[in-house]
Amino acid sequence: MEHHIRYDAAQRALILLDQRLLPTRQEDFVCRTTEDIVTALQVMVVRGAPAIGVTAAWGCVLAAYEAAEAGDHWHPVLDGLLERIAKARPTAVNLRWAVDRMRKVWKTAGHAPFATLISLWESEARRIHRDDIEINRAMGRHGAALIDEGDTVMTHCNAGALATAGYGTALGVIRGAVDAGKKISVIANETRPFLQGARLTAYELHEDHIPVTVACDNACGHLMRKGMVQKVVVGADRIAANGDAANKIGTYSVALLAREHGVPFYVAAPLSTIDRNTPDGDHIPIEDRTPREVTHVGDTQITPDGVPVYNFAFDVTPAALIAGIVTEVGVLRPPYTESIAEAFRKAGLE
Amino acid sequence: MEHHIRYDAAQRALILLDQRLLPTRQEDFVCRTTEDIVTALQVMVVRGAPAIGVTAAWGCVLAAYEAAEAGDHWHPVLDGLLERIAKARPTAVNLRWAVDRMRKVWKTAGHAPFATLISLWESEARRIHRDDIEINRAMGRHGAALIDEGDTVMTHCNAGALATAGYGTALGVIRGAVDAGKKISVIANETRPFLQGARLTAYELHEDHIPVTVACDNACGHLMRKGMVQKVVVGADRIAANGDAANKIGTYSVALLAREHGVPFYVAAPLSTIDRNTPDGDHIPIEDRTPREVTHVGDTQITPDGVPVYNFAFDVTPAALIAGIVTEVGVLRPPYTESIAEAFRKAGLE
Repeated sequence: MEHHIRYDAAQRALILLDQRLLPTRQEDFVCRTTEDIVTALQVMVVRGAPAIGVTAAWGCVLAAYEAAEAGDHWHPVLDGLLERIAKARPTAVNLRWAVDRMRKVWKTAGHAPFATLISLWESEARRIHRDDIEINRAMGRHGAALIDEGDTVMTHCNAGALATAGYGTALGVIRGAVDAGKKISVIANETRPFLQGARLTAYELHEDHIPVTVACDNACGHLMRKGMVQKVVVGADRIAANGDAANKIGTYSVALLAREHGVPFYVAAPLSTIDRNTPDGDHIPIEDRTPREVTHVGDTQITPDGVPVYNFAFDVTPAALIAGIVTEVGVLRPPYTESIAEAFRKAGLE
Repeated sequence: MEHHIRYDAAQRALILLDQRLLPTRQEDFVCRTTEDIVTALQVMVVRGAPAIGVTAAWGCVLAAYEAAEAGDHWHPVLDGLLERIAKARPTAVNLRWAVDRMRKVWKTAGHAPFATLISLWESEARRIHRDDIEINRAMGRHGAALIDEGDTVMTHCNAGALATAGYGTALGVIRGAVDAGKKISVIANETRPFLQGARLTAYELHEDHIPVTVACDNACGHLMRKGMVQKVVVGADRIAANGDAANKIGTYSVALLAREHGVPFYVAAPLSTIDRNTPDGDHIPIEDRTPREVTHVGDTQITPDGVPVYNFAFDVTPAALIAGIVTEVGVLRPPYTESIAEAFRKAGLE
């Protein structure tokens, strides 16, 4: 599944599979402007930290075309549009990471003419896009060793192909185990409120013929008590320098239950998700989203009129609950401050 | 809110507020036969252990009228109908408890004529119905002392007026605190899959002007980490002799998070919910319900076709995670095997 983010150079458009409509409808959402990109990110046509990064990179290209309409003054206009993209959502660090990479290319190009910048940026966005798939495949190879034949692996939210450019992070580890010939099955927590587990994880694993069963988030404790879960693998939206990991709301509960039941809990994320400027989880901004995601499912209203709701999109799992962080350079182990620093050195990212 | 279970002697009908339609529609579901009662219990027109008991008691009266149509052979017919009611759902012990109470009256009456049995049973059902409200008010008075001024109390599922004949068990404790003049607020976990928290708890607290905010079940950990929860109070469907408590799926996760964050976790339930014939939680049967509750919300399909789901309706919270069990005879404290036995002695139920 690698066709959910497609750049069409001729049309100057980024064509996204509208993930809000899955699993029952497959329709595209076409972005031609910065505003389209920001909307797609905010309403979650596309979501998942790596996919957000890839979308943002292509969004910069569209922003450049848009800025060109300002004529000679396109530099400050483009600068503003890039900032608009970088701020579309607060938690996933990949968003700013991708925009910063594009900015760096722009800076290096100096006062290159517009056509040159477009050419350089299309190449850079394509590189970010392709690299993401390669990174996920590397993660899958490293992570596969953590999964045993016959395991049932629980995952939360969707850290799959749909959350990345392809293959997935947490689901990349699962695909890696399957590709290594292991017979495993998956429990997808449905992941209220946006139901990424029920809608997206179930969809893409079922398409790939990997056995998957959906459970309400509430069932997690019961399933672990009954010995029905051998491993947990989830993605992350931002990992702090000490290994604290922000991921979809509810991940922390799963991690705590996993510790209680001796089930190893792994986070799979590329190094681009690790933000060494964030010392720990308390410093990760947690997005507070529209009440509508909680008050309604489809057209069905589930809360009474006039009753307020909480809709925090993420929570933080303390590093102490994480058995390992699967990255493209290997599986990092506690203490994470050291293993993360070492991984960055190894990857030449110091 | 005490009009959601109404017996109409003239019509020979039990009129139930159809809780499946709340909070957006208020419609009655009229039961005239045993089959109607069993359906109402199974599809959850009415739910909640004490409300199930009260409904079952009135259901016995309707069953008697139905059995009378068999003429002289009404005894074995009635016996079969009572068994059908007692087995409508497996987890809540109040169901069999109520039917057993009605059977006892029948046995004591010996070979009384049909009209006498009806009269005795209407009295007994009315007693069970009224006693339940009184028991809940007593629980509220005992439990109020556990709640402090300014507390935010989290609850899971609906252990409210709607889950009982009135006033509620867990929400009875909350109402008791409010009636004692304490200013408190409530977080209602939405409680997937059937959404009793979002639909019912929010509805009845909002009607009573008790401040309530709905959160996805997934938010529980984040809310506790942020210090936004001071107490947890939940109901129970069956409590074993050792204090292990079966309650709505997801309760166990809430209890584990509460322990992690030093938040006292209380269970509120009448002695009729304590089953001393069940030694511990491993012996409580857990109902496995229709997949449709997980795969759809209203008419919206949230899982892909062909993907299986788990729908366990309850889980077991180990006694070790429970700070106290609020009953009509006081707050029981660990070790529960002893305090439960003592409470039964005190209540003359040995």
